[in-house]
Amino acid sequence: DRPFALFGGINVLESRDLALKACEYYVKVTEKLGIPYVFKASFDKANRSSIASFRGPGLDEGLKIFEEIKRTFAVPVITDVHEPYQAAPVAEVCDIIQLPAFLSRQTDLVVAMAKTGAVINIKKAQFLAPQEMQHILRKCEEAGNEQLILCERGSSFGYNNLVVDMLGFGVMKQLGYPVFFDVTHALQMPGGRTDSAGGRRAQVTDLAKAGMSQGLAGLFLEAHPDPNSAKCDGPCALPLDKLEPFLCQIKQLDDLVKSFPPIETA
Amino acid sequence: DRPFALFGGINVLESRDLALKACEYYVKVTEKLGIPYVFKASFDKANRSSIASFRGPGLDEGLKIFEEIKRTFAVPVITDVHEPYQAAPVAEVCDIIQLPAFLSRQTDLVVAMAKTGAVINIKKAQFLAPQEMQHILRKCEEAGNEQLILCERGSSFGYNNLVVDMLGFGVMKQLGYPVFFDVTHALQMPGGRTDSAGGRRAQVTDLAKAGMSQGLAGLFLEAHPDPNSAKCDGPCALPLDKLEPFLCQIKQLDDLVKSFPPIETA
Amino acid sequence: DRPFALFGGINVLESRDLALKACEYYVKVTEKLGIPYVFKASFDKANRSSIASFRGPGLDEGLKIFEEIKRTFAVPVITDVHEPYQAAPVAEVCDIIQLPAFLSRQTDLVVAMAKTGAVINIKKAQFLAPQEMQHILRKCEEAGNEQLILCERGSSFGYNNLVVDMLGFGVMKQLGYPVFFDVTHALQMPGGRTDSAGGRRAQVTDLAKAGMSQGLAGLFLEAHPDPNSAKCDGPCALPLDKLEPFLCQIKQLDDLVKSFPPIETA
Amino acid sequence: DRPFALFGGINVLESRDLALKACEYYVKVTEKLGIPYVFKASFDKANRSSIASFRGPGLDEGLKIFEEIKRTFAVPVITDVHEPYQAAPVAEVCDIIQLPAFLSRQTDLVVAMAKTGAVINIKKAQFLAPQEMQHILRKCEEAGNEQLILCERGSSFGYNNLVVDMLGFGVMKQLGYPVFFDVTHALQMPGGRTDSAGGRRAQVTDLAKAGMSQGLAGLFLEAHPDPNSAKCDGPCALPLDKLEPFLCQIKQLDDLVKSFPPIETA
Repeated sequence: DRPFALFGGINVLESRDLALKACEYYVKVTEKLGIPYVFKASFDKANRSSIASFRGPGLDEGLKIFEEIKRTFAVPVITDVHEPYQAAPVAEVCDIIQLPAFLSRQTDLVVAMAKTGAVINIKKAQFLAPQEMQHILRKCEEAGNEQLILCERGSSFGYNNLVVDMLGFGVMKQLGYPVFFDVTHALQMPGGRTDSAGGRRAQVTDLAKAGMSQGLAGLFLEAHPDPNSAKCDGPCALPLDKLEPFLCQIKQLDDLVKSFPPIETA
Repeated sequence: DRPFALFGGINVLESRDLALKACEYYVKVTEKLGIPYVFKASFDKANRSSIASFRGPGLDEGLKIFEEIKRTFAVPVITDVHEPYQAAPVAEVCDIIQLPAFLSRQTDLVVAMAKTGAVINIKKAQFLAPQEMQHILRKCEEAGNEQLILCERGSSFGYNNLVVDMLGFGVMKQLGYPVFFDVTHALQMPGGRTDSAGGRRAQVTDLAKAGMSQGLAGLFLEAHPDPNSAKCDGPCALPLDKLEPFLCQIKQLDDLVKSFPPIETA
Repeated sequence: DRPFALFGGINVLESRDLALKACEYYVKVTEKLGIPYVFKASFDKANRSSIASFRGPGLDEGLKIFEEIKRTFAVPVITDVHEPYQAAPVAEVCDIIQLPAFLSRQTDLVVAMAKTGAVINIKKAQFLAPQEMQHILRKCEEAGNEQLILCERGSSFGYNNLVVDMLGFGVMKQLGYPVFFDVTHALQMPGGRTDSAGGRRAQVTDLAKAGMSQGLAGLFLEAHPDPNSAKCDGPCALPLDKLEPFLCQIKQLDDLVKSFPPIETA
Repeated sequence: DRPFALFGGINVLESRDLALKACEYYVKVTEKLGIPYVFKASFDKANRSSIASFRGPGLDEGLKIFEEIKRTFAVPVITDVHEPYQAAPVAEVCDIIQLPAFLSRQTDLVVAMAKTGAVINIKKAQFLAPQEMQHILRKCEEAGNEQLILCERGSSFGYNNLVVDMLGFGVMKQLGYPVFFDVTHALQMPGGRTDSAGGRRAQVTDLAKAGMSQGLAGLFLEAHPDPNSAKCDGPCALPLDKLEPFLCQIKQLDDLVKSFPPIETA
């Protein structure tokens, strides 16, 4: 598990060109640093705060872009699915399919995703305790899938705020599956702007260091060449040109903490 | 708006017989007390904690039971829908369709439901602030539906607990639509039992009094003839034989608070 | 326990004149409504957010005002104490002495207060669960005092916000002592203004109705003739001229809920 | 600021022998690792959950032990004070005096402590947002003391739980003073045992890594030779014999993160 794997990319497929450009940049940096890399983007933002918000190109167009990404860069791809019927076609193209946090309790979606045989990245809902993730794991296992990942993205903390409980990573590790940290979404301030979530982009490196100090299997990250003009979650996105120094620090930290022997203090 | 309306019934359609028996009882009590009544039950529990949990009879069988309920008792019916394709057929039978709390940000579902023209009962998600409900209202309005209801059911308060913010009712009233209180689900203790939610049934009357002291348009309530053997959310269900004294108290309270003139204290 | 008792007054002893004027008004209204009344004011605000904030006249001057209040209106008086040495002299004048929420775990203060033999009003700290109040009760009992009152004033809910858990009243009632509701402080938004707490004065009647729907022994209330110019917690204070309609509604509500027989739903 | 300083010791002065033994061990390990060290112990636990809990030797006896510690090991000492009258005598012996979290808003205590001229370690209350700490800093500055330290120890997260908001460290750093992390108390589960706080000792290394990944000025730590028989907060105490491997890992982590150049992502 050294170093961590990166699920990195952009929030939404704003355009084929942005996807290719961003992926090329991620590939260059992760190859240089020796970090296993999976390209991430969403073909549809199905739960935007406002109906007027940009949602993405949709399933068919999105899958074409993912195919081109895979053909061009020979990298695996992860994307999120929102309804049961999407699971099979998405899994034909994508290597990892992601269960959104808000939907993580929807049994039909979980089962449809699990049955594809793809790796499932399970986002922890903002309203679930870490130990409750075991129920979602059980649902997947009973549908025959044990290629599962748990992914932290923050817990509801009063109104319009999220907090990442660092003790939750250890609780989730005990459940027996790889644990990732979605630092981007954990930076959100839900309802923080008039019609969409705010974010704390200036603190992305700090929060990533805290999470990755826990010796995790992977990091989930969204970046954008110009976060202020991003069509979704710009307030949380890493400026793409900071990717190399950012990952360089996180990799050193990850290498160090994974070199530590466990200390029994119970 | 006097007295409040009751969305009352059972959690899940455990059987046709239970539905008919419960509805008959609700009709008898609400007629006696003069409370406008809508029968509530779910045809599918799509987000149970565990895959082994009982889910219900499904869409087709469920709609048949709802038709029989309507034919037999001449009452309107409310039920919850979980995927866009369900909205239209459910709205052909049911008078009010309910947007589940966890799904309240899913744009496609919101729009599909709104387009049916049915009344929409919007459950407030445990992770949303009261003022954020305006975005969901906007989504419905832009899809052409202004027959909307907002329904409080508690906010995440640390792990495995919900709290009802009484100040949130006033905030939601300002958004211009009727506000209901789902006392049953607000009693949940998420993840409180090994494989399902716990509840605080012993306090149902207390919590109902607190919520209904706010002068609300309606109350949402689930009951069961034997809560300890209920197939879902028994720990939160009112024992059915307590329905009359329970509603009798709530109605008196509602009548009283709605007789009060507003006091300007800003 | 019918009707509830009122601990009502002003936040801080801004002046002798304000205290006398406010008390006279409270006495007039509570006599008219038949509500048992105790005058409340603080001689020192020992935990203001900012060092520049007004603190009050101090112990000696404050006690003189309380003596004049008692002499003039023949009402009992409650005030809060902050250090062990204050307990005895304050208890010589005041009938009820109050343990501040932030200080409710300070054993020496609790014991010093308990040993005076005065009635103790124990504010529930924002960081304590309702069931934890039993430890503070035990401390008082072991110091020989069983004239104890528990007083809810909201729980920390994320940053800069408080929420009142209505289910907590029932939990505290089980501890065997009278339970009061401090509606004023529960309206606070801690850190909500540049250098002091904000508040939600416009919702004071709503929150009072919710709390008093629980059948409580008493209500704690602060008012001010001109809340916008109050020297402390103006954003939470009831405008004094609204006292009669406010109490009139609360008394009717209290009378009603206390007329209800208990409903066993466990 | 490399490496971090350690405020390390024991929770309460259970005995002179324990204090000397523990300090000797801390001195040996910190000298070996090159970590600046300050001995910490409490002479009085003034806010135990239960009145029957052990409180410590008291002020006079405690100061004698601190004097012996200083004489024997030539290390600075930090302890907490609870009432204004204690500030001056404690500051005559101790180098750093600590403002307890629950008391951090008590103006008289803050001012009395600040006026001693000693360094003040300000514990952040569980009910305060990071930015609210500025008010306490202002109180100290206005009393003429600018030798101030801010110390995180977790925020209320629902009932009986604390969470450490990693983004809060960055917020507090902006206030211009050194920021420490009290990992021991952040492990508490308030009210988690029948008559005292529980804790998550098994996760002490994980939580320390998360906090110290933020590039902090110091770490606050309590250890015990036999945590299960400790007289206070044993469930949170590091087993003393794990001190060297624990600090060795934290120092490597601290060295690494402090070698990183800042990355501008705002």
